[in-house]
Amino acid sequence: MTSMESRSGKPGPKGLSRRIPERAHPVTLRDVAEAAGVSTATVSLIVNKKKDARIAEETKQRVKDAIRALGYRPNAMAKTLVSGTSRFIGLVADGVATTPFAGQIIHGAQDEAWKHGYALLIANTEGNGELEQDAIQMMLEYKVRGILYSTWFHRQTDIPAPLREADFVLVNCFSKEPESPAVVPDEVQGGRSATAILARHGHRRIAFINATIPAPAKDGRLLGYREALEEAGIPFDPDLVMEAYPDQEGGYGATPELLHRGATAVYCYNDRMAMGLYDGLREHGLSIPDDMAVVGFDNQEVIAAHLRPPLSTVSLPHYELGAAGVRMLLELDGAPEAASDGVARIYCPPVERTSVKARARA
Amino acid sequence: MTSMESRSGKPGPKGLSRRIPERAHPVTLRDVAEAAGVSTATVSLIVNKKKDARIAEETKQRVKDAIRALGYRPNAMAKTLVSGTSRFIGLVADGVATTPFAGQIIHGAQDEAWKHGYALLIANTEGNGELEQDAIQMMLEYKVRGILYSTWFHRQTDIPAPLREADFVLVNCFSKEPESPAVVPDEVQGGRSATAILARHGHRRIAFINATIPAPAKDGRLLGYREALEEAGIPFDPDLVMEAYPDQEGGYGATPELLHRGATAVYCYNDRMAMGLYDGLREHGLSIPDDMAVVGFDNQEVIAAHLRPPLSTVSLPHYELGAAGVRMLLELDGAPEAASDGVARIYCPPVERTSVKARARA
Repeated sequence: MTSMESRSGKPGPKGLSRRIPERAHPVTLRDVAEAAGVSTATVSLIVNKKKDARIAEETKQRVKDAIRALGYRPNAMAKTLVSGTSRFIGLVADGVATTPFAGQIIHGAQDEAWKHGYALLIANTEGNGELEQDAIQMMLEYKVRGILYSTWFHRQTDIPAPLREADFVLVNCFSKEPESPAVVPDEVQGGRSATAILARHGHRRIAFINATIPAPAKDGRLLGYREALEEAGIPFDPDLVMEAYPDQEGGYGATPELLHRGATAVYCYNDRMAMGLYDGLREHGLSIPDDMAVVGFDNQEVIAAHLRPPLSTVSLPHYELGAAGVRMLLELDGAPEAASDGVARIYCPPVERTSVKARARA
Repeated sequence: MTSMESRSGKPGPKGLSRRIPERAHPVTLRDVAEAAGVSTATVSLIVNKKKDARIAEETKQRVKDAIRALGYRPNAMAKTLVSGTSRFIGLVADGVATTPFAGQIIHGAQDEAWKHGYALLIANTEGNGELEQDAIQMMLEYKVRGILYSTWFHRQTDIPAPLREADFVLVNCFSKEPESPAVVPDEVQGGRSATAILARHGHRRIAFINATIPAPAKDGRLLGYREALEEAGIPFDPDLVMEAYPDQEGGYGATPELLHRGATAVYCYNDRMAMGLYDGLREHGLSIPDDMAVVGFDNQEVIAAHLRPPLSTVSLPHYELGAAGVRMLLELDGAPEAASDGVARIYCPPVERTSVKARARA
């Protein structure tokens, strides 16, 4: 069965129901013009909302009635040929399937794009470089207004060659090349906020379990930790900074060493690590927050709020990254201020739950 | 600054770097024809790969060289105007931001679509009906080949009116209307597989903590549980079927009642419930799998493999749902067989870890 036959309304095989059109061909401008008794040029002026066109209200109404009666649908592709760009914004994402984070970037970007009359054309590459090249080429062929290039974890990136042919903004990543527009989470502020929760509750021996894997988050969150200690008048003790693989097994494995170093509170690089640490502390007969106050990072949907006790943490602002990326691309009011390196940094809001309580004075 | 100025290559405000084109207008067919010293018709025949066109190899090569030298890019929109449909498949998703599941549907649909030369045009509605209508209208205007309409949890759905104007497949949802093409997880088989893991390890008192919320998954997984018991020659005991809210708090809260009913093994409606049950069992001083064998459902990325001990569970086949949806839409070989109701059901693979061990004979 050819595509044409399928579109003609016959049911396909395997019980697929198919559209049953009321007419043999799609409704055209000419059909509308004939029904309304006007020229196709007049219909075109009305459909394309040319403001300076002088058309009688009565004629306009007749054309609009015909459009409604016939179910005429303007061809977006034809409009694009005239205007040179489509109403698409491309979004290249490298991890839609592997993390819930990419979904929030998509959500934020799409909400903001729709507000301004753009639709998102999304390509999910899962890190496949060839697919990425093809996806960007395809977006260029469809004359996108611009492209958001996003990564599921915050990192430095090279700018793929075809991306340079479009207006673009890097989302959750950044380039070494000067003036490359980018929007990323403010890791330093996030680390500061996480540590400040613990300092504010009277803790002085605050450990930080950082990640073993090099990343902007690793450097930024450590810097934020040090800044928060300084603000609270707590001397920095390098013995209280540890490293572990950033998942549940890493947090669990770090437990004995954490206890050995005499901390009363710990800020974990991410929520998954905190989840493993919960198990480790329990096996040592310790309770949270009485014996150890714990703070995470990420505010990961299926974990943070559902641990026992619910975990205080810091949110990664993925929704806002996507929305801000669109505002930067379209150069809208409310686009975040970029620093001199072209990179805008977005606030990571602290979320307080019950894994921290005030420290009893010794 | 207008959009036109921005496109002309001047740097935008806030340090945005912009594309700096090498020529004042996009490269056209005519530019290529002039450079190669042939007619635009000849270039068009070569670009559009007309197989019956008789063109000398030497001419072809000259045109291809000119295309490469000038950086000519065919306009996908113009091709669409000629062919009547674009190389887009639309995907409407209601929960990209709120669950990792939607990401897997996107991943599977996109991989399959790309294989056949289609790109995905994705709209994320987060359940907003107005946005959904607009998104489908937009897809129709862009002349998509067809639309996948997907939901993040398996449920019955109404078919939105504009969806009927396209070829469509329902993904992870289904309609009461006969012959509506749909692809969903095989919940009955999944429930059977989950229960069979426990029966195979010698358990006879196997509890099932079902969800409190009505859903096809609730009915299907219970039916599968009963079928597996019957296959194993274990009489069904209604006392061993309980209900709880399908999250960590629900599983935790169900612990005392589960212990009261004298089960040695439990199959939880989902992984989140199992995660809460782990905490509940630990607080009762019980260990998994020695005192209680536990099986979940979903194989949720950030949870199942990272619990202590790692959780045996059943995978929801979201990737495969997306891929199968595309195959059904395009009526390709390898599309899953639909039942008489138009619904194709996809296998849910069991994933065995260490939360179940052989039951010692009493």
